[in-house]
This record gives sequence, C-alpha cells and structure tokens, in this order.
Amino acid sequence: MDVTSFFRLSYGIYAVCTADKGKTNGYIANTVFQVSADPPLLAVSCSKDNLSTQMIRNSGKFSVSVLTEQSSPELIGMFGFKSGKQEEKFKSFPFFTGKLGIPILTKDAAAWFECEVVNQLELETHILIIGKVHDCEILDESATPMTYAWYREFRRGLSPKNAPTYVDPSLKKDEPAAKISTKRYQCIACNFIYDPAIGDPDGGIPPGTAFEDIPDNWMCPVCGASKDMFEEIV
Amino acid sequence: MDVTSFFRLSYGIYAVCTADKGKTNGYIANTVFQVSADPPLLAVSCSKDNLSTQMIRNSGKFSVSVLTEQSSPELIGMFGFKSGKQEEKFKSFPFFTGKLGIPILTKDAAAWFECEVVNQLELETHILIIGKVHDCEILDESATPMTYAWYREFRRGLSPKNAPTYVDPSLKKDEPAAKISTKRYQCIACNFIYDPAIGDPDGGIPPGTAFEDIPDNWMCPVCGASKDMFEEIV
Repeated sequence: MDVTSFFRLSYGIYAVCTADKGKTNGYIANTVFQVSADPPLLAVSCSKDNLSTQMIRNSGKFSVSVLTEQSSPELIGMFGFKSGKQEEKFKSFPFFTGKLGIPILTKDAAAWFECEVVNQLELETHILIIGKVHDCEILDESATPMTYAWYREFRRGLSPKNAPTYVDPSLKKDEPAAKISTKRYQCIACNFIYDPAIGDPDGGIPPGTAFEDIPDNWMCPVCGASKDMFEEIV
Repeated sequence: MDVTSFFRLSYGIYAVCTADKGKTNGYIANTVFQVSADPPLLAVSCSKDNLSTQMIRNSGKFSVSVLTEQSSPELIGMFGFKSGKQEEKFKSFPFFTGKLGIPILTKDAAAWFECEVVNQLELETHILIIGKVHDCEILDESATPMTYAWYREFRRGLSPKNAPTYVDPSLKKDEPAAKISTKRYQCIACNFIYDPAIGDPDGGIPPGTAFEDIPDNWMCPVCGASKDMFEEIV
C-alpha cells in the first residue's frame, strides 16, 4: 500500500462554521462534497476531537464558505491551526449571520452554503455530517476556488493530524524509518508546530530533520513566517 | 438560492469499478473522498439507479481509479455515459484483477484504490458507500489528476442526470424559463444526448436552443464528435 496515492484525490478548501449557545466557531476542511442532488445535500467529514464538530452536532447547523486561491495565510492559520477553545476566530474576519442563525465567513470566499444537519455517520476517527442546503450564494464570480492540490503545491500546506486526509509520513513507501530528534518548534505567528518526526516534505525537509538543520531561508508552511519566528516547545 | 454555487465545490474524476456474479462493471464518479484517516476509509456517493451501485452493494467491494487530464474521451464516454446493462465496459480498456477479485482500471489512471464496503448511508437519490482501503498504488507519478473544474472547462463535460452534482439548468438564477423545443439528438460515437431543455451551457449553447440552431462547428461535449455525428431520437 502506497499511502501517497491518497494525495491524488482532489478536494477544495473550505471554512466550515457554526454557532452554539452564543459562541461562534469554525475550522478549515477539505472533505466537503455534494452527496445528493434533490434535495441538495452536502457532506462534511469532521474529526471527533474538533470543538466545531461538537458544536455542529449540538446546534444541528453549519455553513460552508468556499475559499479562493487568494485566501490569506492568516485566515487559514486562524481557522485551520488554532482551536476555538482558545480563540474567538471571527474577531478579525468579516462574516454575516445567515437565516439559520449561524455565522457565514465572507472573507476570501467565492461562495457559501447554509445547511441543516439531517444525518450523521460515525466512522472511526471522524463523523460524516450530512446537511440539507437551505441557502447558497456566489460571492465572487471571478475568483478561483482553492484546491487542496494547489494549497499543497503553492502554499505547502500540511494537513493537521486530525484531518481525515492526514497521512502519517512514516508510512510512506520506500522511506526508511529515520533517526528522529525530538525538539519541536512552534510558529509564533500561526501556531504551526514543526515536528522533526514529520519534517516538511512539501517544503523539501524530509522526516527526521532537526529544526536546527533546516536552511535559514525555510518558511512556515502555513503562514510563510521566517524560521526565526519559531520558538522551541518546552 | 443560487445553485451555480455548487460548481464552486472541487472534485476529482474517478472510475469506480466492481464485479458481481462474474460480471464486471464501472462508472465515472466525482464524489470520491477520504473520510477517515486510521484506518483509511473512502466514501463514494452512488446513484440508486446505477447498475454499478447494485453490484457494489451485492459484492461489498469496489475499486477507484484516479483519472488524469490525459484521459481519453472514449473512456469517459464508455464508463460515464453508457450503461453496463448494454455494454461490457472493460472490453476495450486495460485493467487488472486486484486481491479482492474486482477489476481495477489502469487505463488513463494516476493511482488506484481497492476497497471493502464497511458502511452505507441512504440519502434521498443517492447512497453513500464507505469502503475500507485494502490496497492502493501510484500508477503514474507525473500525471496530473483530472479535476471536475478542469473537465468542465477543457472538456465541457456535463454531469449525467443521476450524478449527485447534477444541477437542473432551469433552476439557475436569473435565467428565465425558455420556450423549449423537444427534439432530442444523440451522439452516435458516445451516446451523449443533446436535450434542448438543457442546452450545452458550457459550450455556449443556452437552454432552450433547438439542435438545428446550434452552430455547425459545435462539438459533442463528451467525446468531441462533430455535429453531423448526432441523430434524432425518435
């Protein structure tokens, strides 16, 4: 089994948002897709660990904003790599409240959907949530939706470990288990964590590379911060 | 609700294949995606009307081949627009039989997956089938997987009416109901049906255009055959 095969599946990049008990939240997802035509249903695969997942299950509602190739690293850093337990994610990004009473992110979005949960399927590490689309609109006719392949190629994005599409680099074919140093470093701009066991393969840094051995011109794969913006996690 | 919003969701293009009771079959899908990381699970949204869907439910097995931008119109015409009730779809295309005993299409494929059905969810017009990946391999490292957006832009592909992502053109925003002529024509090369009620919006032919009024340089949106390759359906 060559797990890099999974990188040949195509996805978009979306902000999936909700509100519950007066709190708003959201996260970045790639596994959003239409699963039925009439009525139109969207499916989203959510990690059981995510705060947003619990909030969507409680409120029974979620929105999907289709992010564009112009989406800012700050937005992806905030919604994709920080937790709503610590952050009010919407504080710096424009949104509006839809008919279902949940926030719909409009920043960097080509289109949006507002959905009511009609079904759920528990799947190992994830829950597949099915939503009936109540409303949807185009925000930017000319914007190109960001694809996961584009994000990997041009932004060198990595899936967080709780994404359904996370692939353990140690399972990659023909890559021997590397001797791994254990010091992890965190980007102070976006909180991305550099883990030597994972490296930054998309940025040319193979698994097993100590942070100290990364070239000085390397940049944070999430937000583009320079190497000196990283601090050791102690 | 502006249903063209659904065109902003990103998908790949896949051949989903199976075998049951000695017969092989397959169809073209865009809604294939990874829904859980460990163990890796793939989900496929299948029309209840498809013969392949019934065969996958009977056999409990399916394969997914990731089609590339070089995929031939003949392959998409055969697997996407013809029925296994009339055709032996594999007769002209290379494949091999995987460990689970089902055909895996290798023609025009960047990678493949072999899956065992572990769950199913009935959703209105479609069934979401969840498969545990038993094996997967890369076939062509350098090939670019075809995306649905690319297919729509460069091949002017249309979703068949039983696709989960089919959008009824008559629902498109700001398009008044057109006076519709009823004569339908079929491509003798790939069986694509030109329906004046639908037109060929991606090819510049708005809904409500009679076949006779289409410019002579128009081509079949599926296989590229010329206009004179179409015959009236009587």
